[in-house]
Formats: sequence, C-alpha cells, structure tokens
Amino acid sequence: MGDPAGIGPEIIVKALRQRPELLSRVVVVGDVPTLQRALQLTRPSTGVSDPLLMPIATLAEAETLPAGCLAVVQACALPEPVPLGRISAEAGRAAADCIAWAARAALRGEAVALVTAPIHKEALSAAGVAHPGHTEYLQALAAEHLGVSIDRLPVRMMLSCPGLRTVLVSIHVALRDALDAVTQDQVLQTLRITAAHFQRSGLPQASIAVAGLNPHAGEGGLFGREEIDVIAPAIAQAQAEGIHASGPHAPDTVFMRARQGEFDVVLAMYHDQGLIPVKLMGLEHGVNTTLGLPFVRTSPDHGTAFDLAGTGRASPASLLAAIDAALGAGI
Amino acid sequence: MGDPAGIGPEIIVKALRQRPELLSRVVVVGDVPTLQRALQLTRPSTGVSDPLLMPIATLAEAETLPAGCLAVVQACALPEPVPLGRISAEAGRAAADCIAWAARAALRGEAVALVTAPIHKEALSAAGVAHPGHTEYLQALAAEHLGVSIDRLPVRMMLSCPGLRTVLVSIHVALRDALDAVTQDQVLQTLRITAAHFQRSGLPQASIAVAGLNPHAGEGGLFGREEIDVIAPAIAQAQAEGIHASGPHAPDTVFMRARQGEFDVVLAMYHDQGLIPVKLMGLEHGVNTTLGLPFVRTSPDHGTAFDLAGTGRASPASLLAAIDAALGAGI
Repeated sequence: MGDPAGIGPEIIVKALRQRPELLSRVVVVGDVPTLQRALQLTRPSTGVSDPLLMPIATLAEAETLPAGCLAVVQACALPEPVPLGRISAEAGRAAADCIAWAARAALRGEAVALVTAPIHKEALSAAGVAHPGHTEYLQALAAEHLGVSIDRLPVRMMLSCPGLRTVLVSIHVALRDALDAVTQDQVLQTLRITAAHFQRSGLPQASIAVAGLNPHAGEGGLFGREEIDVIAPAIAQAQAEGIHASGPHAPDTVFMRARQGEFDVVLAMYHDQGLIPVKLMGLEHGVNTTLGLPFVRTSPDHGTAFDLAGTGRASPASLLAAIDAALGAGI
Repeated sequence: MGDPAGIGPEIIVKALRQRPELLSRVVVVGDVPTLQRALQLTRPSTGVSDPLLMPIATLAEAETLPAGCLAVVQACALPEPVPLGRISAEAGRAAADCIAWAARAALRGEAVALVTAPIHKEALSAAGVAHPGHTEYLQALAAEHLGVSIDRLPVRMMLSCPGLRTVLVSIHVALRDALDAVTQDQVLQTLRITAAHFQRSGLPQASIAVAGLNPHAGEGGLFGREEIDVIAPAIAQAQAEGIHASGPHAPDTVFMRARQGEFDVVLAMYHDQGLIPVKLMGLEHGVNTTLGLPFVRTSPDHGTAFDLAGTGRASPASLLAAIDAALGAGI
C-alpha cells in the first residue's frame, strides 16, 4: 500500500479499476478503510461500479474469492485513515508493517513478486524504523529469513522504461563518493547480480553494456584511468565467468545504442548517468526493480506526491508498469 | 570543409544538393578538387545535375554568381585530393588553413556565421597545429584579432537537438577533474556566456535551468554540498545581474522538464550530464554551438567517420541542422 497519507492507495485502486483483469492476480497488503477512502476519492463521475474490497488473512484465501473482488490483507493497525498529505509516525508504522507482511509472504514463496507503492522516508523514520527506504528494509527482512548477515545480500537498483533498462553501481551518495564506489569489486558484483537476475527471469543471454565513468570512456586514459584500471578488468573477469558483458562504452552514446536494441541493459556507474536517460525516455512508465533479493520486487519510479494525495489526479501508469514487470518476472 | 580525408566534403555537397536554396547563402571554404571528388562520390544514380563549383577569392564575390552555383574559396594548398579515411599531416594542414581563412572572414564581419565540418585531432597535431580542436583554435584566432589574451575569451560548448539545449561547464576532462571545475566562478561565467548568447540571438529572456551536481541536487546537503556552497550562490549572483536563471535542479528530471518546454536551456555541470540526454534525443540532428566567440559558430555533433569516408553514405542531417542553426543566429 505504501504510505497511507500519500498517493499509494489512490493509484492502487485506480490501477485495478482501469485493468480489472489484474484483480485475479493481485492482493493488496494494506488497510481496508484507507483503501475504501481511496476508492471514494478516485471514483469517476460516470457510474462505474467499484470492486468489492474483501479482507483476507492469507494469500491462499485470495484464490477462493469470486471474480471482481479486490483482496486486501489487513496488515497494519490504524485506528482510522490518517490525514492525507502529512508526514506522521502512524503512517510510517502502517507502511512498514505492510512491507514486512508482504516481504515475509514472498520469502515463504507464497507470492511470485512484491510491488511496493511509495513510502515517505521521514514518516518511516518517525515510526522508529531504522531503514531509510524500501530496499534496505527488504534486504534486512530477507537476510533475517535466510539467517545470513546483510552484507551477504548485496542488492542493486534497476530502472526501466519502455526501450531502456539500467542497473546502477551506486545510488544515493554524493557524486564525489560515487566515484570512489567505482571499484573492480563493486562493478564485478553489479555484473554478477545483473546476470543472475536475467538468468532467473528467462533471459540468460542478456547482453549487458557497461558504461565508462569518464567522457568518451576516458579516451584511452586521456580523460581518466578508471576504465583501464578498474572497469575493464571487472568486465574481463565477468566474461571469464560466462557473463555476456561488453564495454566500457562511451557514456554519452551507450544509452542511445541500448535504446536502438544493441544491448538489453546498461550498467551505469552512478545515479544520474542511468537516471537521466531513463527519466527522459519515460517518467510516466518508469519501473524500479531491486536485483539481488531472493524474490522479484518492483516499484513505480516516483514518490508519495503528498501535494497530489486526496485529489484523485495521480496517474497509476508507473504502478501499472511495475505490476506488469512483476508479473513478467521483473524484466 | 573539415578534414578532406573524412566525410566533411561529402556531407557538404549532399547537404547542398538536398537543399539547393542554401546555395545562395552558403560559401564553402575548402579545396575545389576535393569537393569535386565528393560530388562524384555522392552523385545519385538517377540523373540529378550537380551544382557548378565556382572558385571565388572573397566572400563578396559570392553575391555576383548566377543562381545554383556552389561558391568555393580555395583556402588550402593541396597538390591533389588526399587519400580518404587516413590520418595525414597534409589533410590536417588543409583543414587548419580553411578554419583560419573562414574565422578571419567572420571576425572581419564578412560572414554572419561559421559552420565547421569535422576535423581529426591527430591530423591537426601531425600538421603541427598546437590547438587540439576547433574551439581552441577559433578562440586563439579571435583573441589575436581582438588583440587580447585567450583567457579574456572564455568559451562554452552548447549542444542542441530538437527540443533540448544544454551548455556545459566543462567538457573533455576526467569526471574527477570536472567536479573540481564546478566552482562559483565557473558556473557564474557559464551563466553569463549563455545569457549573452541568447541576448545577441534574439531570445533575451531565455530561461536558463541550472542542473545540480549530485543526485537529487544534493537533497539539502545530504548527498554533497556543491549545490549549497557553489551552485546556488552563482545562480543568485546571476539573478542579481538580471539573468533569468533558476536552480539548482535535480539532474535526473531537469532535462525532461526542459524537453517539456519549462526551460530554454539547461546548464550541465559536466560532459555526460548534458551529452547523454542530447544524444538520446537525437544524434542525427545534434548541433554544437560555441558560445563566447565574437561570431556565431556551429558544427555537426559527430566526427570525421573515416570508416564511412568515400562511401557516399554519410548523412548530412546534422550538418544541415548546424547550417540552419547558424542561419538562425545559433539558437
């Protein structure tokens, strides 16, 4: 459900109203009254009948419901729907409880994938949740389930839009620190995680293009040596392991080439190298996939949009793309 | 003309054959036999008559020619056309002589703009030219003409494609060095050069978006402080000077917003931040404009393509976009 004060509940019910065939495959882990409010907030003026919210206790129960019902697991304990568009500890706690319930179901193999609606970092923090975002929280839950330490479960973010996929070596750090994160180990680990994801998702021969770090990929050492000293050796090692990787390619043309079909995915060396082209290509349909977890996890490529919450105007397009990606094994 | 061993001569004659109305406004500064060869190499199989090459000695003579003639200033001294697709000192010298002739004509006010076809850095170097590329050479020629030192003529590169323009704070340096080049002085200077260009080009109220350096423009100092310490003060100073600048904006969405019409131009903090979106949007129609020179200078956004030279297959699209941009005062 995501943060109940954000647009999550509204885009969920809009998505399922728009594509009712998904009702037979999607269970919402959330809060029934909050979703009921979202149905009201987004009801079209023309007489469209709402799907019936059906509380269930286990995912298996969803399969026993009549067609056209929206199955909801009541996974949090809100006394009443929270005010819209405001940061609160109650909302953060509810969002966290839903994440934990859904992740554990996926870890037990009861769900094929987890799609997460947007949460608010400050609400999560106000609720005393130690993890800054979905990814770190899911990593911790998975490590706990598997009985391993978190550093045994390195994850990477993949961003996708129609025609372009990119996996990032690092995400929310200063660009100066991102440069330091471009090590042979980090690049190789990103290649391994990416290859394993596509292997599991039915694209075992996915062609992975590795972007350089410097303009023109360093032009033979003229504008920086990271390509020669760090990136090329990581690619060589991955190739020796049977991974279909190439590069380092000039960053300013590799995304264009991927879009033209030459590569299945581009490894980006830092946040904006990958995010600028994906957002330019299609913000509306962006999907975020977490690679490295023991289950498929996707999410829309936007936030809680507190300023839009309650207006019923938020677009479900990116969430629908995330649901479709999850049903298609995350690719 | 660019390097006579590259695709320059071919795309020039293809562009002018495709758009014969340009013949009355364009003079080629080059080598008559090389251009004659290019006409032969690119002649369509169907019977299209070639424009007649007319050697002229001064730009004023062009206006006395009959319609449909291609005016050529013989500005270099090649004994015969150079072999295609090969680096040579002869080719580099010819390219340099043409640049110098054309730039001096523009500096004397005899031409409204200069469009440069691609040159090869190694050929230029083999010819003993001390400048690594067009931009530095033009800067030196302009400084000489004006009787000032080169550091009084700071220039910036603007890349444009349909729907998107970006001006770069730095270009061909390692990303690590590019971070160090993001100083308050450099950002302010880039803003002033950009504003002066649009002022002169008839868009005095051009809206200039300044991209941040770090993910999410630093998110309030959480991922880097350059936005707070360096970029925002430069923007404030520019605004105080009457420049219509805004930002720093999140790099991953500012190009999308510019494309949607919110800004006229985006100031990019480093090469790939600006080049990735422009190349993704339209490599075929990319135009490079040098800002800061005393005349308008544009060029296609591609190189000599030695592998294509002589095949007649190189596309004149980007050169035509550069000519159109030059005739439209470089915007």
